[in-house]
Amino acid sequence: MKDCTKDAIINAEIQLRKISSIIKLKGRKILTNYPITPPQFIALQWLIEEEELTIGELSKKIGLAFSTTTDLVDRMEKTELVVRVKDSNDKRVVRIHVLDKGKDIINEVIKKRQNYLGELLDGFTEEQTDQLNELLGLLLQQMENVSKESN
Amino acid sequence: MKDCTKDAIINAEIQLRKISSIIKLKGRKILTNYPITPPQFIALQWLIEEEELTIGELSKKIGLAFSTTTDLVDRMEKTELVVRVKDSNDKRVVRIHVLDKGKDIINEVIKKRQNYLGELLDGFTEEQTDQLNELLGLLLQQMENVSKESN
Repeated sequence: MKDCTKDAIINAEIQLRKISSIIKLKGRKILTNYPITPPQFIALQWLIEEEELTIGELSKKIGLAFSTTTDLVDRMEKTELVVRVKDSNDKRVVRIHVLDKGKDIINEVIKKRQNYLGELLDGFTEEQTDQLNELLGLLLQQMENVSKESN
Repeated sequence: MKDCTKDAIINAEIQLRKISSIIKLKGRKILTNYPITPPQFIALQWLIEEEELTIGELSKKIGLAFSTTTDLVDRMEKTELVVRVKDSNDKRVVRIHVLDKGKDIINEVIKKRQNYLGELLDGFTEEQTDQLNELLGLLLQQMENVSKESN
């Protein structure tokens, strides 16, 4: 591997680590105005994106143990963010369905995150924003490829 | 705001959210081979980068409560990752100093993260990698500017 490539990898790792950490802190700050916790935000996002998931599927997506995910879903069911729904064909299969209250909160939180990103991209030219999106898309695609290879 | 800009912001927010979440899961997976937890990894990183910090300073950097940060430092001191050092001029000021064991672990974990990023950047041309680094640098700079404005 060429030294310039190695330096570029070291640099990209540092920058992505810092950006992720700042986004995480910013995301947590936004959530202080809403009645959900950071793990609930992550779970609700996945449940909305995938329409609905079983607890087992959700626990894999969010990287938490099955028992921790069950507790998370219990608390979200109590606060009427989600509801457990039995599969009409197989009553043993239970899926988590996000209620309107949960969807509304996620939409508002994501709008706040978009506003923040909009402030950041104010310092970018239109061309730079497009380039950034293109390269982030490529990075995501590579993440999916690498994850498929390792499975 | 133009519609294309709005779409670009929405797109960038989704992509950064997904990338952060994949990096977080990957980081957690890497840590399963090391005797430190994810919050300990984040704290050690900051302590190494800033050379040393008080518990108050550290708690601000990692976004955790003072009492949670104290517990975190207590556990890291027990496992000999860090040590509390009194300021030579003002004995009331205590700073957290990372021991060699802590530094070695962080170096190894970061090498593993770099290997992963190297795999991802294998699908990039040299020009794309340079562009990505440049744009991530610009994004980080904007993050610092926006955070200064809001303080």
